Amino acid sequence: MIQENYFDLLFNPRGIVIYGVNKAPYGGTFFLRLLVQMKFDKPIYCINPKLKGENLYGYTVYGSIHEISKEDPIDLAIIAIPARFTPGLMKELGEHDVKFAHIFTSGYSEVGNIELENQLLEAAKLHNVRVIGPNCVGIYSPSSKITFAPDSSDVAGNIAFVSQSGGLAIRLAKNGPSREYYFSKIVSLGNQIDINITELLEYFKNDSETKIIGLYIENIGPQGKKFLDLVRETTLKKPVVIWKAGISDTGKSAVMSHTGGLAGDYKIWQAMAKQSGAILVENFQELTETIQALSFYNIPETKDITILSAGGGNSIEATDDCERAGLNIPIIPRSVQEKIHEFIPKVNTNVQNPFDLGAVGLNNTSFGKVIRILKEDTSIRTVIFIRSPERFKAYEQVQKIPDFENDLIAHLTETQDKNLMLLSIPLLLDENEYTVKARYQYRKKLEQHKIMSFYSAVSAAKCVKRLWEYGNFLRKVENTKN
Amino acid sequence: MIQENYFDLLFNPRGIVIYGVNKAPYGGTFFLRLLVQMKFDKPIYCINPKLKGENLYGYTVYGSIHEISKEDPIDLAIIAIPARFTPGLMKELGEHDVKFAHIFTSGYSEVGNIELENQLLEAAKLHNVRVIGPNCVGIYSPSSKITFAPDSSDVAGNIAFVSQSGGLAIRLAKNGPSREYYFSKIVSLGNQIDINITELLEYFKNDSETKIIGLYIENIGPQGKKFLDLVRETTLKKPVVIWKAGISDTGKSAVMSHTGGLAGDYKIWQAMAKQSGAILVENFQELTETIQALSFYNIPETKDITILSAGGGNSIEATDDCERAGLNIPIIPRSVQEKIHEFIPKVNTNVQNPFDLGAVGLNNTSFGKVIRILKEDTSIRTVIFIRSPERFKAYEQVQKIPDFENDLIAHLTETQDKNLMLLSIPLLLDENEYTVKARYQYRKKLEQHKIMSFYSAVSAAKCVKRLWEYGNFLRKVENTKN
Repeated sequence: MIQENYFDLLFNPRGIVIYGVNKAPYGGTFFLRLLVQMKFDKPIYCINPKLKGENLYGYTVYGSIHEISKEDPIDLAIIAIPARFTPGLMKELGEHDVKFAHIFTSGYSEVGNIELENQLLEAAKLHNVRVIGPNCVGIYSPSSKITFAPDSSDVAGNIAFVSQSGGLAIRLAKNGPSREYYFSKIVSLGNQIDINITELLEYFKNDSETKIIGLYIENIGPQGKKFLDLVRETTLKKPVVIWKAGISDTGKSAVMSHTGGLAGDYKIWQAMAKQSGAILVENFQELTETIQALSFYNIPETKDITILSAGGGNSIEATDDCERAGLNIPIIPRSVQEKIHEFIPKVNTNVQNPFDLGAVGLNNTSFGKVIRILKEDTSIRTVIFIRSPERFKAYEQVQKIPDFENDLIAHLTETQDKNLMLLSIPLLLDENEYTVKARYQYRKKLEQHKIMSFYSAVSAAKCVKRLWEYGNFLRKVENTKN
Repeated sequence: MIQENYFDLLFNPRGIVIYGVNKAPYGGTFFLRLLVQMKFDKPIYCINPKLKGENLYGYTVYGSIHEISKEDPIDLAIIAIPARFTPGLMKELGEHDVKFAHIFTSGYSEVGNIELENQLLEAAKLHNVRVIGPNCVGIYSPSSKITFAPDSSDVAGNIAFVSQSGGLAIRLAKNGPSREYYFSKIVSLGNQIDINITELLEYFKNDSETKIIGLYIENIGPQGKKFLDLVRETTLKKPVVIWKAGISDTGKSAVMSHTGGLAGDYKIWQAMAKQSGAILVENFQELTETIQALSFYNIPETKDITILSAGGGNSIEATDDCERAGLNIPIIPRSVQEKIHEFIPKVNTNVQNPFDLGAVGLNNTSFGKVIRILKEDTSIRTVIFIRSPERFKAYEQVQKIPDFENDLIAHLTETQDKNLMLLSIPLLLDENEYTVKARYQYRKKLEQHKIMSFYSAVSAAKCVKRLWEYGNFLRKVENTKN
C-alpha cells in the first residue's frame, strides 16, 4: 500500500527526465516543447545517446541518466522510446530513484503484445518504479505547469479527471478552460498496467485541491469490488461523474483494441451508480455539461424548473423536454405572478410557468426584472431562459447585439449566485458567420458569469436531473443515518 | 369541399391587400416591407383610412378596398387591425372576391375571447373568405416572393411545412436556407379556425413542388380520423415528419394559452405514427435534422453504420451511441479491410469497423482514399466520419485548415451521392472565436455538398434510425401487397 499523498510527487515532480527526444518535434520532444511552452520551472533532463551534448529548446541532451547527479531529484520520467526497450529502462530509473514513469509508447497488450507488457510491469515492480500507461499521454497538472496538449491553460481549478483515453484527456483539458471550468489534475492511464483508476480515485478523494471527480472508464480490471466501495465513500464527500464507454458489443471489441481491456456489462454499471451515488453519463457532451454544472452551481434541492421565454412555441418545447426528462414545472406562486404583471401585460402572455413573456419579454430591462423577482422567491431555484442573441440583426430598429448582451448580462449577473441555477438556451435561427459568432460571444459572456448555455432544452433538462439525483442520493443517505 | 388546387392562389396570389399599415414599421407595414424586400412583383394594395393618399414604401395607401377596381384580382388579404374589427372586414373582402385572409391579429380564443373568434369565422364563411389563423404569421412562398421573416431566401426547395407556431415557422424559414435545405411553402396556422392542418396536408400530398412534408402540431381538432387516413395515404408518396408539441401536462396547458386548443395524448400520437408511417420527432433539433437528411439523402436500406475515426476513444463513443440508438455496426468485409491496409498500417489501428485509422488517418489523402474504397463496396451505405476541423491549429507542422478542408472536401465530394449517407461529427475541443468559425466554415462547406454535420453521434444515430424506420414501413407495406 502506498502512502496517501505519494502521488503528490507525480503531480508536482521536483525534476523530469524525458527519454526519446529527437530533432523532429514528435515523441519525447513533443513533451519537452509542452513543458517549455508551459514554463515548467523545475529541472528537465533530456536523454538520447545519439544526440548527446546537443541542445534542444534550451536543454542539454544527456547520453544516459547516469550522467545526472543523484543529488538532483527526478520524480517523473516521460518515455517515448520503442516499446521493446522499455522494460530494460526500469533498472536505470530505479537506480536514480525515479518514482514515476509515464510511458507514452504504445504497442503492448492493445496490439496483442501481452508478453512485453508483462515484462515491463515486472521490471518496474522490481525497481520500484510506478508506471502510468503504457499507451497514454500522461498528466496535466496546471499548478505545476505540466501538460500533454499544446496551448494548455495554466489556471488550476477543482476538477480532477482520470481517463483511459488520451484523446479524451486532451479534449477535456482544452474544452474546460475555454468554457470556464478548470481542472486540478487530469491523468491519462491508457492500458493502466500499474497505477489504476481505483488508486487515483482514492488519492483524489482526499486531495484538498479537488472538489469534483470525473472518470472515463473503458475497463476497471480486477479491482471491481474495491472500486465500488471507494466510489461509495467518495460520493459522500464530493461528486463522482463516471462515463463508462464500450457498453455495446461492438464498442466492447473496440475497447479491446484501444486499451487492451475487457469492458463490463452496462447494467452492472447502472446498478453500481445507483448504489454508490455516482453520476453516470453516456458521452462527451453529457460529461462536459455535468462537470461544468457541478463547478458552476450548488446541487438543486428540488426538480422544479421555471421556464422563461418570449414566445409560446419555445416555452412549450422546453416544457415538453423538461417533463420528458422527469422534472417538474410548478405553477409560480400567485403573489409572484402579480408582481410580474405589474410590468408584463396580461394579453398574449403567460406568467404561471412556463412563462411566455410576449413581445415585452424581448426587452432586456423587463427580462432582467422578471429574473430578479424570481430570485427573491426562495421557492424558485432553477431557471431556464430562452433568448436568441443573434435574432435582432434584421430588425434595424430593435437594439443592437452588443447593448443587448451587456444589458442582459448586467441584470443576470446581479441575480446569479451559487443557489440560483440560470441556464441559457439560444434559439437557433440561421447559421451564418454573424450568428455563429454572436452565439459564441453571448455564451462566452454568460459562462464568464457562471451561467451555463445549452444548445437544447433536452440537454439542459437532463443535466439538471443528474445533479438533482445526486442530491437526492445524499439526502437519502442522511435520512438513513437519522 | 374545395378544389384540389384551390390553394395555388394562396401561395401564388395575383394581388395582395394589406390592412393595418402604419408609418411605424410594425403590423401591416411589417408585411409590406417584407414584400418589398422580397421584390414581390404583383400588385400590393395598402389600406388605412387615416393615411389615405399617402405613400408607404412606394405604394399608395387606400381608404378602403372599394377604391380598388374589381377588375384587379386580389387573392390574399393580410390583416393586422385590432381583433374587434376583423369580423366586420369579411364582408368587404367577400365583395371584392378576396379568396384568403391571413389574420395576423391576436386576441381570440388563445386569451379566452371565443365569442369574437366565432363571429370572425361565421362572417368569413358567409362571405366566402377562407381564413389563415388568426394569431399567426401567415405564409412563406419563396417562388412567389412572399414571406413572414426579414432577409428570407427566395430559393424554392421541395419541403412543405405547416406550423401552429409562428415563431417556429420563422425559425425554419431562416434555418433551412442557411443550412442548404429549402422550402416549397411554409404556412403558419395559429388558431386554425378555418384552414387547418388536414386540408393543407391534402394539398401538399398532391403538390408537385413538394417532396417532403413537415408538420408542427399543437392540437389537431375534430379532424383526427380524417387526418390519420390522410397521413397514411401521404406517407406512401412522400415522407411526413410530425412534431407533436404539448405532450406533457404542463405543456398541454401552455398550448391552451398559445393557440387556444387542447393537446392530445402523446401515446395516441406514437401509435398513429407507427400505423401511418409518419416520422415523429420531439424538438426543433430533431425536426431540422430529419428534414435536412430527407432532403440530402435517399432512405437507407439497412441500419448498418460504418464509423470512421482517427482515435480509439472517439470511435468507441460513436459506437456506443449508434448501438444505443438501435443501429448495427457490422464488420467490414475482409477484402475491403485488406485494400485499406495497403496504406493504413496494422499497428495501433482498426479497420474492421468501428475504424480507428490512427495517426495516418489524420492525413486527408488517406482519409479520402478510405472513403472511396468504402463507396466501391455496395454493402456500405451510411458512413459517420469524425474529424476536427479546428484541431490542427496548434501543431505548426501539420497542414493548415484551409488546405485541410479543401483537400478533404474534394475527396468527399467525389464520393458523395444520394445513396451514400456521409455524416460528419466534429470533435469539439476548445471553444474560441477561431474554432467556432472553423467548425462553421467546415460545416457550411460540407452542407453545400449535401453532407450533413452533427454535433453529436447520438443525434446522427437517431436521425439515421428515423429514416431507416420510414423505409422499413414502406417495405412492409410493399410486402403486404405482394
